[in-house]
Amino acid sequence: MIATDPAFRAALDGLELIDHPVQLRLRSRDFYWYSPILKAELDGKAADLIVVPRTVDEVVRVAAACARFGVPLVVRGGATGNYGQMVPLQGGVLLDMARLDRTLCVERGRGRFEAGVRLGDADVLCQKQGWELRMFPSTRRQATVGGYVCGGAAGVGSIRYGQLRDAGSVLALKVVTCEPVPRLIELRGVDIGKALHAYGTTSIVVEVELALAPAYPWVEIATAFDDFAAAAHFAQALGESDGIFLKLDSLMAWPLPRYFERGGAITLERRYVEDRAITPLYEYTWNHTTLQALKVDKTVTYLQTIFPLGANVEALIASHEMFGEEVMAHAEFQRRQGRTNCSSLQVVRYSDEARLWEIVRGMETLGIRLSNPHSYILEDKGARVLSADLQLAFKREADPQGLLNPGKMSRWTAA
Amino acid sequence: MIATDPAFRAALDGLELIDHPVQLRLRSRDFYWYSPILKAELDGKAADLIVVPRTVDEVVRVAAACARFGVPLVVRGGATGNYGQMVPLQGGVLLDMARLDRTLCVERGRGRFEAGVRLGDADVLCQKQGWELRMFPSTRRQATVGGYVCGGAAGVGSIRYGQLRDAGSVLALKVVTCEPVPRLIELRGVDIGKALHAYGTTSIVVEVELALAPAYPWVEIATAFDDFAAAAHFAQALGESDGIFLKLDSLMAWPLPRYFERGGAITLERRYVEDRAITPLYEYTWNHTTLQALKVDKTVTYLQTIFPLGANVEALIASHEMFGEEVMAHAEFQRRQGRTNCSSLQVVRYSDEARLWEIVRGMETLGIRLSNPHSYILEDKGARVLSADLQLAFKREADPQGLLNPGKMSRWTAA
Repeated sequence: MIATDPAFRAALDGLELIDHPVQLRLRSRDFYWYSPILKAELDGKAADLIVVPRTVDEVVRVAAACARFGVPLVVRGGATGNYGQMVPLQGGVLLDMARLDRTLCVERGRGRFEAGVRLGDADVLCQKQGWELRMFPSTRRQATVGGYVCGGAAGVGSIRYGQLRDAGSVLALKVVTCEPVPRLIELRGVDIGKALHAYGTTSIVVEVELALAPAYPWVEIATAFDDFAAAAHFAQALGESDGIFLKLDSLMAWPLPRYFERGGAITLERRYVEDRAITPLYEYTWNHTTLQALKVDKTVTYLQTIFPLGANVEALIASHEMFGEEVMAHAEFQRRQGRTNCSSLQVVRYSDEARLWEIVRGMETLGIRLSNPHSYILEDKGARVLSADLQLAFKREADPQGLLNPGKMSRWTAA
Repeated sequence: MIATDPAFRAALDGLELIDHPVQLRLRSRDFYWYSPILKAELDGKAADLIVVPRTVDEVVRVAAACARFGVPLVVRGGATGNYGQMVPLQGGVLLDMARLDRTLCVERGRGRFEAGVRLGDADVLCQKQGWELRMFPSTRRQATVGGYVCGGAAGVGSIRYGQLRDAGSVLALKVVTCEPVPRLIELRGVDIGKALHAYGTTSIVVEVELALAPAYPWVEIATAFDDFAAAAHFAQALGESDGIFLKLDSLMAWPLPRYFERGGAITLERRYVEDRAITPLYEYTWNHTTLQALKVDKTVTYLQTIFPLGANVEALIASHEMFGEEVMAHAEFQRRQGRTNCSSLQVVRYSDEARLWEIVRGMETLGIRLSNPHSYILEDKGARVLSADLQLAFKREADPQGLLNPGKMSRWTAA
């Protein structure tokens, strides 16, 4: 195969390369195994060669080599995605960004990071200067800045600051094109959409400039309700309370909290502190909810859904009543288009694929739309058509051979 | 009159008293003269005696003396109100809080102040510790903390943090009752509504605990549009952009900006700095808009209106088209019930009272409701019925003789 071609290896001379089969297998995976469907499709997929760049120049060299030799190139951040975003479908090079991890600046509401900086490290560093990340995924400790903007959409903080795609969240992306002579492009404003949430299919994100929030002394609170509908209305009202400054507003139906018990009362109130020995509350939320359930029960999987604006609480309660404990309701409240809405990562007692899609069709009758977590296809994730067109056009320009994360962008595959 | 009664004066022995007629006249006024209607009603109203307490104990002594002698008692903050909130209708004592001005604490998101602390001073002090006021009126430099919570509703910052009455904005009020043996009561939670926005009719607010926001390096930006409708849609979209952290989102129709010109271009972008020599952008907004217009044209007055949720931009544009330059459109965007809405302080070319109410009726056909700025009556200001009932009940308990700011609470007067 081309990745072991001596001429190709020579082009990468002096770079850190890894080709041990165990490493290739382990590092080519993310958390797609939450989905039995993706597990069947993606198990065994692996890169042929891992390259670990330490500078942007080294990234440029790898991109140039892949373009010249026609080798697929997939970028790996913290590999905390849930849809196989970084799983190489056609082998080739896996570009592991773990060592491209310098913080370039933190100042007055903005921070600029190399793509491989871990979000938790970035956040702690910002906090020392009185700032914090506006939002982060529940995988904050492992996930990287680059991986988040390429594969994520929202997170802890979205109840106040909205989505990653909202103007003002991501201030700039520096990307490397995949061409024989790669270009370095600084994307700002609407152009950020060319690479944001594109799974690295359009270019290689090497630097990320994020808007920061002033650091806040957070408090973690858990509250129990006897009734799901009452809890759902409370979560919505809390999310609409402009005077209560929130970082997270999560709703879990029973029996989900049972998976979280750690020998204490479920209700909680404590000051948030950075401490590796304590599981932060956010590690029970977003898609960590599913992970916590999977730790206890390997047979569950999950759905990911978007709720109708202005009627989300009603839809949430109706779906809870429709499916009961088969689909354990779990909603993450967040700002969307200036309104308090929720999306949901429901934990599902899995029987088979047919039943899963039946559940999805049932949800659709309630106005709840799927953002399919059982697909590795970019366009199945509710990416807006505007971004999809922009990204396809940019890919034609920046990756004319279609080498970047091949098989993930269906519009490119179809074209 | 009782305020000059030797026995009453003896009860106030040792307190700072002022009874010079010029001082009595000047200090009994606020900015009600923006309204030709209030001007006719309130000109000449004045207290009989001013007391300037330096401690809460001194406030208690004044309250006790007024209760024993049946003397009306009105509290004066910065006297920046626009509805005669602090104008004594029945003479008596004016309690000038200017020297009750200690900052009691600033820590981790909360600040506690004596009522007479000026908002600008409080804000600067908080900023030194990395915090800032969540919201303040455009009269920030003069207005006091106590006056704001008793007579204000929202302000600069409301586009992000909502209204003063929203849970989490005001954390506590310490009040003194008007009884022969006054009580000191700490109000928290829903009880805050007993004194919040009550014009000092229910009790005397002596301490205020406010939620603080992390300090932010603000930038002032002014932008010109050719078309009012485009500007209105932009202001709404900006206010709904969760990723853009705003402090102020104000919309002014031409010719309002002409009143503001200071020999330069109208468009502006500069870092906000505390500097007495520079007029901050917020001193052209909220009801400073009207003041800036009045400085140039003494014949204008204003309206104050609330817009329909979800249809506010359409109503704004329709009213601009209905009245043109007679009613110069001016909107302050803010969060209300979790949504981006606006209220308006329209500058009106005044002809007579009949025409003013005709304009109001025209507005009402567009779904725009008046929060009457030409009335000194508390209940005419859109106070919610819930608060009105709570306040009436609390007044019965804390001011059984009805001595506090008499004539302002219509429910009391009627009962």
